[in-house]
Amino acid sequence: MATAGKVIKCKAAVAWEPNKPLVIEEIEVAPPEANEVRIKIVATSLCHTDLYHLLESMPKEGFPTVLGHEAAGIVESVGPGVTEYQPGDKVIPLFIMQCRECRFCKSPKTNQCDKAWRSTSRPNVMAPPESRLSCKGKTLLQFVGTSTFSEYTVVHEMAVAKIDPAAPLDKIGLIGCAVCTGYGAAVNNAKVEPGSTCAVFGLGAVGLAAVMGCKNAGAKRIIAVDTNPEKFEKAKVFGATDFVNPKDHDKPISQVLSEMTDGGVDFSLECVGNVKVMRSALESCVPGWGVSVIVGWTALHDVSTEPLQLIAGRRWTGSAFGGFKGRDGVPQMVKAYQDGKLKLDEFITHHMTLDQVNDAIELMKNGKCIRTMMKVSK
Amino acid sequence: MATAGKVIKCKAAVAWEPNKPLVIEEIEVAPPEANEVRIKIVATSLCHTDLYHLLESMPKEGFPTVLGHEAAGIVESVGPGVTEYQPGDKVIPLFIMQCRECRFCKSPKTNQCDKAWRSTSRPNVMAPPESRLSCKGKTLLQFVGTSTFSEYTVVHEMAVAKIDPAAPLDKIGLIGCAVCTGYGAAVNNAKVEPGSTCAVFGLGAVGLAAVMGCKNAGAKRIIAVDTNPEKFEKAKVFGATDFVNPKDHDKPISQVLSEMTDGGVDFSLECVGNVKVMRSALESCVPGWGVSVIVGWTALHDVSTEPLQLIAGRRWTGSAFGGFKGRDGVPQMVKAYQDGKLKLDEFITHHMTLDQVNDAIELMKNGKCIRTMMKVSK
Repeated sequence: MATAGKVIKCKAAVAWEPNKPLVIEEIEVAPPEANEVRIKIVATSLCHTDLYHLLESMPKEGFPTVLGHEAAGIVESVGPGVTEYQPGDKVIPLFIMQCRECRFCKSPKTNQCDKAWRSTSRPNVMAPPESRLSCKGKTLLQFVGTSTFSEYTVVHEMAVAKIDPAAPLDKIGLIGCAVCTGYGAAVNNAKVEPGSTCAVFGLGAVGLAAVMGCKNAGAKRIIAVDTNPEKFEKAKVFGATDFVNPKDHDKPISQVLSEMTDGGVDFSLECVGNVKVMRSALESCVPGWGVSVIVGWTALHDVSTEPLQLIAGRRWTGSAFGGFKGRDGVPQMVKAYQDGKLKLDEFITHHMTLDQVNDAIELMKNGKCIRTMMKVSK
Repeated sequence: MATAGKVIKCKAAVAWEPNKPLVIEEIEVAPPEANEVRIKIVATSLCHTDLYHLLESMPKEGFPTVLGHEAAGIVESVGPGVTEYQPGDKVIPLFIMQCRECRFCKSPKTNQCDKAWRSTSRPNVMAPPESRLSCKGKTLLQFVGTSTFSEYTVVHEMAVAKIDPAAPLDKIGLIGCAVCTGYGAAVNNAKVEPGSTCAVFGLGAVGLAAVMGCKNAGAKRIIAVDTNPEKFEKAKVFGATDFVNPKDHDKPISQVLSEMTDGGVDFSLECVGNVKVMRSALESCVPGWGVSVIVGWTALHDVSTEPLQLIAGRRWTGSAFGGFKGRDGVPQMVKAYQDGKLKLDEFITHHMTLDQVNDAIELMKNGKCIRTMMKVSK
């Protein structure tokens, strides 16, 4: 490849500071170092976690950065020691690594690789201190170790999933975050059972993927909860059977769900990232065996409940990337899409280019999209 | 039986009001009504939950009452419709019922019978409104549906476990609360695995039983945590391998345990009933698969943590009566004691009579006992 070993100058959307529009800049992308892979990003979508960093948590030490972590691309070049990937491979970058060697990777119970959180070793910053990206002489932090709002990025080989070359890169990037996160929370973390009753709180892309996970796991009843009733139609497409808008009720939503289900749901999934909703999701579960999974991400507040809610036998856990070990699980999810077992197209409500990223942000801020797919490179 | 069908006048320790010494009174115990069993209590012990009601939660509507719920006795008479029990049967009263017919009883996942909390249908009061006990013309509430600080009490047939007639009643009453609660939290709720590392917070009778449960489940390492180092010797008897006094450390105990265990324990059990300790127990768990079980009881404060603690894969749940379905599980635990597989004698540090109940309370308040076994009837 003509570019291998050289610095690439390319276009990226730079977040110079919190709560400001992103700026399309020419940036420099250094060659991959040992065990690293440089990827040409073909398409990326915008996820609420990007907005969380830009607009909510706004960590001072987390800027300037290049956001974006839900994408697909093609390997441009590899650094020394990389044997599993080669230029031309179609890949999805991973914000949770899989080293395959630590006790977590070797356990079937978790995807929490010992190295998983390299990208968030500074959890409030959500970016490792090292980066191959720079602009105007300044290092651009690599958001959650990926930074896909760029024509090129460099990630660790443990953070790359190689996928079927026939897969459409303008669709399957969704598997890199929202779809695995929601779907896996239902099937891997909650372990939704056939015939069960589920509730999904929040009907963004993650919540819709959770609905799909519940349906594919055989749930009999899937209650979709959102304060924006415009989301209900889409939730139905993914398998929701009942629809609840908390604004339509004077009483706590946990009580509403308990009354609808004769005591509470078997499984609930919080896909908002709000600690009050997390509590509500737990307390909507049936005593004895109800499982509630926190899927939404927030580090701004503690989550709380009465001890008796847990003493009564409810179980509270959480999910990161739906429990999928990325290098193994992502290619399987891509195959599931190719086999018609997984919906992806239905998530994509808007198509744009990376130049229009600020428009995509506005759409998401106003709840007007599920996913905007942005073309980055040809 | 000479007394069957008649009101029995007998001795009981009455809690007339919160935070006052109990008063030994002559009370009246009405005959059992339909599906009820009148039991002569032979021996009872004092549990911290009795003190919680008397000294901590102190619900105005929860007095006057007869405390006590960890006991063994002999059936004196039965009400209409009772076929499973007859006068002379040796029994342990249960504060969580088992109806055997509801969806919870039919599920192997839980002991949370639909009727379980009859006794706590008013959870802050911890006593059902009906009672067969009275004194000086006043109804005495039946604490958690049992009230064993009395020579006689009347409980629902669903709240009675029939045990081997050869079992020693002055020992096996402990199975009616502390021993099942702690032991079962480890084996039934946490599902402690062979070779695992466990931490038990709080080394009262429940905590010691949890230590024993961890050991019998095959845990390799059992870290006993208590601010009273006098408890450590006893914990060793039950199987603890490491001992941590939070007062010996300047840093959070979750950090101490994480450093001792290369990242956190596999299972933790909170046996104190303090929301700060509950949080600490959760945060002492290893990410990915660590399970923390709330065993201690409190309804005074909410429990809280950072969402990321759960998102990282920890699981938080709770336990009531160790997950045992009482009518089935209690006789099995009695048999385990008789077979030498369960320690009971080691819990009993003091012997008294019911007349001395206020002395037993003082001992427990000051952390000077594990269990005081009180003789009630011959």
